[in-house]
Amino acid sequence: MAELSHVNKNSQPVMVDVSEKKITRRNAVARAMITLPEQVMETLRKDDFMTRKGSVFQTAVIAGIMAAKKTGGLIPLCHPIGLDNCEINIELNGQQDMVIYCTAGVEAKTGVEMEALTGASVAALTIYDMCKALSHDMVIREIKLIEKSGGKNDLKRKK
Amino acid sequence: MAELSHVNKNSQPVMVDVSEKKITRRNAVARAMITLPEQVMETLRKDDFMTRKGSVFQTAVIAGIMAAKKTGGLIPLCHPIGLDNCEINIELNGQQDMVIYCTAGVEAKTGVEMEALTGASVAALTIYDMCKALSHDMVIREIKLIEKSGGKNDLKRKK
Amino acid sequence: MAELSHVNKNSQPVMVDVSEKKITRRNAVARAMITLPEQVMETLRKDDFMTRKGSVFQTAVIAGIMAAKKTGGLIPLCHPIGLDNCEINIELNGQQDMVIYCTAGVEAKTGVEMEALTGASVAALTIYDMCKALSHDMVIREIKLIEKSGGKNDLKRKK
Amino acid sequence: MAELSHVNKNSQPVMVDVSEKKITRRNAVARAMITLPEQVMETLRKDDFMTRKGSVFQTAVIAGIMAAKKTGGLIPLCHPIGLDNCEINIELNGQQDMVIYCTAGVEAKTGVEMEALTGASVAALTIYDMCKALSHDMVIREIKLIEKSGGKNDLKRKK
Amino acid sequence: MAELSHVNKNSQPVMVDVSEKKITRRNAVARAMITLPEQVMETLRKDDFMTRKGSVFQTAVIAGIMAAKKTGGLIPLCHPIGLDNCEINIELNGQQDMVIYCTAGVEAKTGVEMEALTGASVAALTIYDMCKALSHDMVIREIKLIEKSGGKNDLKRKK
Amino acid sequence: MAELSHVNKNSQPVMVDVSEKKITRRNAVARAMITLPEQVMETLRKDDFMTRKGSVFQTAVIAGIMAAKKTGGLIPLCHPIGLDNCEINIELNGQQDMVIYCTAGVEAKTGVEMEALTGASVAALTIYDMCKALSHDMVIREIKLIEKSGGKNDLKRKK
Repeated sequence: MAELSHVNKNSQPVMVDVSEKKITRRNAVARAMITLPEQVMETLRKDDFMTRKGSVFQTAVIAGIMAAKKTGGLIPLCHPIGLDNCEINIELNGQQDMVIYCTAGVEAKTGVEMEALTGASVAALTIYDMCKALSHDMVIREIKLIEKSGGKNDLKRKK
Repeated sequence: MAELSHVNKNSQPVMVDVSEKKITRRNAVARAMITLPEQVMETLRKDDFMTRKGSVFQTAVIAGIMAAKKTGGLIPLCHPIGLDNCEINIELNGQQDMVIYCTAGVEAKTGVEMEALTGASVAALTIYDMCKALSHDMVIREIKLIEKSGGKNDLKRKK
Repeated sequence: MAELSHVNKNSQPVMVDVSEKKITRRNAVARAMITLPEQVMETLRKDDFMTRKGSVFQTAVIAGIMAAKKTGGLIPLCHPIGLDNCEINIELNGQQDMVIYCTAGVEAKTGVEMEALTGASVAALTIYDMCKALSHDMVIREIKLIEKSGGKNDLKRKK
Repeated sequence: MAELSHVNKNSQPVMVDVSEKKITRRNAVARAMITLPEQVMETLRKDDFMTRKGSVFQTAVIAGIMAAKKTGGLIPLCHPIGLDNCEINIELNGQQDMVIYCTAGVEAKTGVEMEALTGASVAALTIYDMCKALSHDMVIREIKLIEKSGGKNDLKRKK
Repeated sequence: MAELSHVNKNSQPVMVDVSEKKITRRNAVARAMITLPEQVMETLRKDDFMTRKGSVFQTAVIAGIMAAKKTGGLIPLCHPIGLDNCEINIELNGQQDMVIYCTAGVEAKTGVEMEALTGASVAALTIYDMCKALSHDMVIREIKLIEKSGGKNDLKRKK
Repeated sequence: MAELSHVNKNSQPVMVDVSEKKITRRNAVARAMITLPEQVMETLRKDDFMTRKGSVFQTAVIAGIMAAKKTGGLIPLCHPIGLDNCEINIELNGQQDMVIYCTAGVEAKTGVEMEALTGASVAALTIYDMCKALSHDMVIREIKLIEKSGGKNDLKRKK
C-alpha cells in the first residue's frame, strides 16, 4: 500500500529526500474560490473595484505571489525552492464567487503544487481581509489542484 | 453605504488607522475542512495516524500555530500584532473530512480573525502536503469564521 | 558631546534600552523620490499607469507597507514594534520624479522613523524593479525624514 | 505532579494561554560558550580579531540580537513579543572558550528566556560559521539560563 | 597561516565568493544534546512523551527542520541555499540527555554544515521551551559537527 | 514601444516568466550615499568610528548583506534566487558622505540588480538608524546601479 512520504519508519515527520531525483521543469495551477455575500458584491460593483485594476484585486494578486515565494517557510516539510514564474488571475464567475488561479513554475527536483496552492489560498485570505469590514459572511472554498506537470504523475482537471 | 476599510479615497490600498481605538481582549475561532479520498483515509487509518498523536496531525497543528504568528507578514494590510494564545484542534467528522479549528486571542486595538483564518488555512495546506504522495484528489473547503469577540460586531456561529 | 546610542562603551553595537521610557503615540513621515528617464515616463503615461490605480503604483504601495512591518527584521538594532497605521502616497512632481510619502504611527516606547524610512525606500525600490526592463537610468534620491512626533525632539519639515 | 505547559490534555502541542496574566517587566540572561581549537585561537590572536572591535565578535553580536528578535518565528510555541532591550557581550575566559552573554528585556505577559537563549545560541553559531574554514573542531557548549526576573519563579545563578 | 574566510583584507565581514566553485553533493550531520533534570525526565516518562510519537519530540523535529531552512536568514554570512533533504532524529542516551541529530543535504557550491548545526540547535531550544515550566535546570551542550562530505575536507567522527 | 515586464496584458502585476532563459553568471554593483551633518561627522571622527573597524560601519555591512539575501521577500515581483557572493564596501568621500557599494553575484536565469540595490539601501538605512540620536538631518541619496553583467544589456558606469 502507498505510504505517506513525509513520515519516516519511526512515525516521525521528515522532509522527503529528493537528492537522487532529476531536475525537470515543474508547473502547477491551483484554484481557490471565495464566496461573497450580496452586501460585499454591491460595494465592490461600485466604482471599479470589480475590475482588474481595482485595489482589492491587485492587493490579492501581490499577496498571493509573495506567499508563493514563502511556501517553504510556511509548510514545514516543503523543500525550499525558487520560482521561475508565478501568476495570479482572479475572475468573477457570474455568481457570487471570486475565482483565483495561481500558476507556478520552476526547474527543480520537486514539484510546485504547494507553491500554487499557497499562493491561491493567501490571495483568497487577502480578499477576505479587505472586505471583512462589510461582512464576515464570506467563505473560502474549494482550494484544489487543477494542473501539475513535470513529475511522476501529471494531472490536468477541467477548470 | 458601507465602505471598504482598506481602500482610501484615492482607491489605493491602505492599512486601517487604529490609533484611536481602545485595546480590548480579542478572540476569534476559524474553521477549515479538508476532504480526503478513500485512498488517503485508508493509509491514515493504519497504525495511529488518525489519532491525535499521529505526526500528520501534529505537524499540521504546529504549522498552523506558526502561520498564525506570521499573519501580519502574509496579509498585506493586516496590523502586526502579538498573540496571547493560539490553539489548533483537528477532528474527523465521520465522513471523509478533517475539520480544523484555530482559536486565537490577544489584547489589541484590532481583531484576530485573520490570524485564526490563516492558522486554519495553513494547517489544512500542511495536511495536503503530507498526504499528496498518495493522491491529489484532496479539496480544502469551507474556510470560515466561526466566532469573534471583543470588537464592534461580535459573531458566534453554530459549529 | 552627543553619543551614538547604538554603540556601547566597549564600541560594540547594542539595542538601545528603552525599558524606562514611557509609551507615547509616535508618528513619522518619510519621503523618497525616484527620478525616471523620459523613456520610462513615456511608457507609464500610456494607458493609466500614471494614475493612482496603475499597477506600478499599487505594487509599490503594498511593498512599502509590508516592508514597514518588517523594519525590525531588517535594521539590526531597531526595536521590534507594531504599527497602528501605515500609509504610502505616491505623487508625480511635474518633473520626472515619483515622490513617495510613507506615514507610520504606533503607541510605543520608541519612534517609528525607521519604519517610515524603510517603507518609503522599499516602495522606491519596487518602482525601480517594475520599470527596469525599460531602462536602468533611474536614481532613487533624497530619502529623508519629513516629520516626527511623540518623542523627545519633534520635527516637521516643509514638504 | 507538574505538567508540561505546552501540551494540552489531548497530548497536542499548544501555545500557553497567557491572556489572564499581568504585564510585568521581564528580564533574562543566557550564556553560551564555544570552545575553539588552538589553530583557530592563533589566527584570531593576530591583528585585533580577539578584541571587541574585531569583525568576528561584531558579526556575532549583531546576529545574536537579530535572532533574539526572531525567537517567536523559530520556536513553535513561543509567544510573539517585542523587546525593550537586547545586548550581547562576548568574553574570552583565558582558556579556549569564547563566552557569550545575551541579555533581553521587555514588559510582557510572558518571559524572555527563550529570546536570551536564542540570541546566545545564534551568536555562537555565527562564530562557528566565521571560523569554520580554519577547523571544524569547535564545540558549542553549556547553553543555559543565568538569570530571569519578572515571572513566577525568579532565578539567578553565579556566572 | 590559514585565514578567516569571512573577513576581507580590510577586516570587514564578507560573504565568501563561491562563484568559481563547482556544484557537488553536500551532506552534513550535526549533533546537539540537552541534559534534563530528574524532575523533567519523570514527567516525560509518564504517558508516552518519551516515545517518538510524543509531542515534545515531534515539535522539536519540526522546529529543527524549519530552522535548517532559515539558516541563510539567521547566520549573516551564510549563503542562501536550498535543501534536498533534512531529517532530525532524537534519542535518549540512557542518562539524562536527549541527543539530537540533524542531517542535511543539497547539491550546491558550498556546504550544509551550518544548516545541520542550526537545525540541531533549534530543536534543542524547542525542547527547552516545552519543558521550561517544569525546571530551568536544563543545559544544551556539545553542539558539534559529526560528519560532512562533498567539500574540500571531509570529516566523519564517531558518534 | 518597450513594455513594462512586470505588468500583464490585463494591467495586473505579474512575475516575469524566466523559465525559457538560460542560466548565466550575473553580477551587479549598486551604490548608495548618505550625507551626514557636521555634528554626526564629528562624533564619528572620535575614536575609530570612521575606520573600517568601527561598529557603525560593521553593522551596516552586515545589515546590507542580510538584506540582499531577503530581496525576493521584500520586492513583490523579484524572483527568489540565491547568491554566490555579496560584499558591501563603505567609503568616505572627503565631503560629508558615506558612499556604500554593494556587489552581488549568482548563476541564475535572472539578474541581481535588485539584490545589489537592496543591500546598498538597507546598509544606508542602518547608518541612519545608528546615527539618528545625534541628528535627523541626514539624507540618503543617489541610490543607483553602477554595473551589471550577464544579462541582455550589460552596463558599466564610472564610479
